[in-house]
Amino acid sequence: MKLKLLPLVLLLFILSVCRTASAQNKIVVFQSDFGLKDGAVSAMKGVAMGVSTDLKLYDLSHEIPAYNIWEASYRLLQTVTYYPKGTVFVSVVDPGVGTERKSVVLKTKSGHYIVSPDNGTLTLVAESLGIEAVREIDEAVNRRKDSGKSYTFHGRDVYAFTAARLAAGVISFEQVGKQLPNQVVLISYQKALLESGKIKGNIPVLDVQYGNIWTNIGAELLGQLGIKYGDLIHIAVYHLDKKVYEGTMPYSATFGAVDQGKPLAYLNSLLELSFAINRGNFAAEHRIESGNEWTVEVKLIEKR
Amino acid sequence: MKLKLLPLVLLLFILSVCRTASAQNKIVVFQSDFGLKDGAVSAMKGVAMGVSTDLKLYDLSHEIPAYNIWEASYRLLQTVTYYPKGTVFVSVVDPGVGTERKSVVLKTKSGHYIVSPDNGTLTLVAESLGIEAVREIDEAVNRRKDSGKSYTFHGRDVYAFTAARLAAGVISFEQVGKQLPNQVVLISYQKALLESGKIKGNIPVLDVQYGNIWTNIGAELLGQLGIKYGDLIHIAVYHLDKKVYEGTMPYSATFGAVDQGKPLAYLNSLLELSFAINRGNFAAEHRIESGNEWTVEVKLIEKR
Amino acid sequence: MKLKLLPLVLLLFILSVCRTASAQNKIVVFQSDFGLKDGAVSAMKGVAMGVSTDLKLYDLSHEIPAYNIWEASYRLLQTVTYYPKGTVFVSVVDPGVGTERKSVVLKTKSGHYIVSPDNGTLTLVAESLGIEAVREIDEAVNRRKDSGKSYTFHGRDVYAFTAARLAAGVISFEQVGKQLPNQVVLISYQKALLESGKIKGNIPVLDVQYGNIWTNIGAELLGQLGIKYGDLIHIAVYHLDKKVYEGTMPYSATFGAVDQGKPLAYLNSLLELSFAINRGNFAAEHRIESGNEWTVEVKLIEKR
Repeated sequence: MKLKLLPLVLLLFILSVCRTASAQNKIVVFQSDFGLKDGAVSAMKGVAMGVSTDLKLYDLSHEIPAYNIWEASYRLLQTVTYYPKGTVFVSVVDPGVGTERKSVVLKTKSGHYIVSPDNGTLTLVAESLGIEAVREIDEAVNRRKDSGKSYTFHGRDVYAFTAARLAAGVISFEQVGKQLPNQVVLISYQKALLESGKIKGNIPVLDVQYGNIWTNIGAELLGQLGIKYGDLIHIAVYHLDKKVYEGTMPYSATFGAVDQGKPLAYLNSLLELSFAINRGNFAAEHRIESGNEWTVEVKLIEKR
Repeated sequence: MKLKLLPLVLLLFILSVCRTASAQNKIVVFQSDFGLKDGAVSAMKGVAMGVSTDLKLYDLSHEIPAYNIWEASYRLLQTVTYYPKGTVFVSVVDPGVGTERKSVVLKTKSGHYIVSPDNGTLTLVAESLGIEAVREIDEAVNRRKDSGKSYTFHGRDVYAFTAARLAAGVISFEQVGKQLPNQVVLISYQKALLESGKIKGNIPVLDVQYGNIWTNIGAELLGQLGIKYGDLIHIAVYHLDKKVYEGTMPYSATFGAVDQGKPLAYLNSLLELSFAINRGNFAAEHRIESGNEWTVEVKLIEKR
Repeated sequence: MKLKLLPLVLLLFILSVCRTASAQNKIVVFQSDFGLKDGAVSAMKGVAMGVSTDLKLYDLSHEIPAYNIWEASYRLLQTVTYYPKGTVFVSVVDPGVGTERKSVVLKTKSGHYIVSPDNGTLTLVAESLGIEAVREIDEAVNRRKDSGKSYTFHGRDVYAFTAARLAAGVISFEQVGKQLPNQVVLISYQKALLESGKIKGNIPVLDVQYGNIWTNIGAELLGQLGIKYGDLIHIAVYHLDKKVYEGTMPYSATFGAVDQGKPLAYLNSLLELSFAINRGNFAAEHRIESGNEWTVEVKLIEKR
């Protein structure tokens, strides 16, 4: 009699194993300004492994310049949506650690989770992907045991720990802590716009490896000004009120369209207007940096 | 008759699968001074994948300064205990490769394994976590096939290979090789101590990303001198006999307690006394480095 | 009756699960010149996770100097065979992105797959491991959805996507695209050879972390000239026609065979002749670089 029931029990067991395995994608992606020279990033991953060895741990970047909240925000925008829904991101760029900034988990309308101090890091993801809900991490329950005396490593003891528990399904999003209003701390910056025949925008980041200039000017805005591949455009770059660079270059689908050492405009992988020197370093050659104080103006000069 | 036995066979099969899956945590964590510019770190991971694709491979740091055994030792101390018991660490900082230093696996009393040349790398982990047992790697069996002619890449052919086999359960700890006495090669360094109203210690490493000064002075020693958050302390930093820095600063729970650009003392993530400039770089500003030759003295100046 | 069949159904189910799990090793290894300061590498991994969360994602290096196809080729040679057969490599060093270079998958005779632009990156792997087959990626099917407008990020939208689908078994090698002739674009470079008592070769790369000089001169060629450990050899290094360095040093099995600061010759982890200064930096001290323009000549001076 008992033996006859065994196959059913087995089937239920197998199904339950399969269900558990597929309930969450179990991915955690880490970002910080810690660098990779010490053990801080590794300790965060160790804490996550302590929560569940089934987790899959990846990195966004740990080379965010120290305390640069703006760049942390931009790197998240650049990366989040390429991961599947349900992925949990941890971002620890936290110059105000130990002060009154809140520790939160943002759930975006795209179904991604970002664990971060609410210090501006969430600006661009919130604006671009939309806020589904924000919850404040309740450290009374979501904090690694025996970590109470260390005030300065929230990244490991609270953020990595909470992210791992959320990704592994140990806690639900509701169990992160109390729900806050659907808003986060926003950094103000100049939006891209078309004004009397010119497009204005800013330079949110450089493509640091190659020295290319990235702007926040999307392909649609170029279309509104009638700019097409092959056209010549004029750009001017300002730092505050000072003109740092101006020049004319083709808007091109490929780097190969200009000779080595020549400038071109193109759409980067985020489909936003960018400037490069073919096999050269635009930023270094013209001393252009990125951030809120940098502005770019674009005009159409000549149709192909 | 055979069919009636099938459920039992299945149950045993499933249980054996589950048992195998949970017998080890299958985590290997790599540390080296190889950097990430060539394929050396990746080749070690390839060798580990060749042992078992079920392994989970993580990094501690590969930016240990070349041949810096002291820093390798410190990074292990900083990280090991954040991973679950049973995790296998591989550390390859090995200026004496090809000489008579032994290749060993240290099992700590905390239940972690560290595969390393016995050249001082194990100093701080052995002192802090305690030695459960030390075994010398028997290269007659624990060496990758066809690697005999290469003398200079023990990291890949012996250390990564042995760590992967140990983590995957292909070999037991006993099968690593013969047991050695419970001791490892120790680097001598100045311990933290309280002496006639002053705390002395050394600077084992810098928090390189931010330029903060870390000491080996624990929170308990501060307590013995009666130092509490908000108190003013005086610190002096010596390189050998030369005073490199002295100054007064608050001992604070948060960076936000001092103005931007001002110094403070705090407990780092290891709960040891550290010095920082709020949003600045203490080490660069005062040309302070780390290692055995660097000493710090701390006095209590004023209670809050 | 139905219940009696259940054990068989279960057995088939379990076997099918096991078969699927072992059909591919599911490993993808990424190489690029993107660096790790932005989200580009992470976005590639996100795309791969979107294909299958069962994949195991590793890195070769992302610090290939920008546009340096030769070094990309060398790092692949240095690493590929340490991973199990069936591993899929993605290499994105692509100065010609947007031009007419083909996007291909090379299957080596060793059973490894390399997804790359066919721009010379495959030179050394093809020569050393042999070409089993080459297929051109059919972007009509092997391209991430909604990525059509971005011309400049083939690494993410085509290469990472195709590699992940191949490694996960979503597509077969045949489904990559049409088969091409068994050849790839080759970079010409000087082969190692023995000529009138001298061995000539080139310096394909430096061991950048330590400043050691690596050559393409294998152990067999040294054997043909009768060079054994302990012998003294004379080396000369040329940049084009200019002699940059010459000197005499022992050919040694261990770095410890010479005093600190002294040069030695040894076999690197690829079993090729290399030059180092014990605990020093040979390349920096003598301003030696790597690449096609760099030649080395070796003579036997004195038997031990």
